[in-house]
Amino acid sequence: MTLKLDPKTDLSFTRTLAVPRQLVWECWTQPEHIPHFFVPAPHKVTSVDIDLRVGGRFNTTFDVDGNIMENVGVYLEVVPGKKLVFTDAYSEGWKPAPEPFMTAILQLEDAADGGTIYTATARHRSPETREQHEQMGWGTAATQLEAYARSLPK
Amino acid sequence: MTLKLDPKTDLSFTRTLAVPRQLVWECWTQPEHIPHFFVPAPHKVTSVDIDLRVGGRFNTTFDVDGNIMENVGVYLEVVPGKKLVFTDAYSEGWKPAPEPFMTAILQLEDAADGGTIYTATARHRSPETREQHEQMGWGTAATQLEAYARSLPK
Repeated sequence: MTLKLDPKTDLSFTRTLAVPRQLVWECWTQPEHIPHFFVPAPHKVTSVDIDLRVGGRFNTTFDVDGNIMENVGVYLEVVPGKKLVFTDAYSEGWKPAPEPFMTAILQLEDAADGGTIYTATARHRSPETREQHEQMGWGTAATQLEAYARSLPK
Repeated sequence: MTLKLDPKTDLSFTRTLAVPRQLVWECWTQPEHIPHFFVPAPHKVTSVDIDLRVGGRFNTTFDVDGNIMENVGVYLEVVPGKKLVFTDAYSEGWKPAPEPFMTAILQLEDAADGGTIYTATARHRSPETREQHEQMGWGTAATQLEAYARSLPK
């Protein structure tokens, strides 16, 4: 389904990555890969806890200039190799977060040259959180993911 | 998975309904049944639009003392006959709602006598929304569902 986006609250782009679709999927769903691209360098991901199923946890710890941030979230939709949706609006057991930040929708398709047509969308509750996300370096993950995935052994 | 509840923000009860589990499931997932129990009488449900899948819509219209309320929501988890999770925190396409009200988790098990062990949980972002939900007659749906389902042809 094509998303009906709202430019006031959504961020979205489509890019072709020179990496096969299956590898993009693995980078986004296997905990050992996440620290290599998930947050804009030089910030770090220091732990990743994944239960890859609808309602399962996607918990990470960030080190942002020495400040430790615990992020808890869940997967909303898991279509292997094709679509991954996650959010901080819930923690495990569908416990709603008081002030959720965003919902990410990743959609993957094969590109003709063996790469991946990569569409990343972040939906927000308000224009303010959208703006904040953009300022944080939204979109950098895809650039970092591509560079990291190309460095992996074939 | 047993839920770790938070009494400050969650409402939950378990009751045995004298209705088979499959019929309870049908009442909650087929649009023709919803108006018969979903809101406390004498309030009315005047339309129901269901796309029963993860991320699919669960949209309803209420008539509360002549005030028309449009409610949009989605299903978060659909385990046929066993578990249904829905919320107004999203509309279709995983668009976050600015001010979500609640997330409902319905869990069904067979009771020994052919009835259903029915656990209903509503999770909220804040103690205030929990309180508001309780005042609205939280729990009445189960009572109305049981009475309605027992009236259906076997």
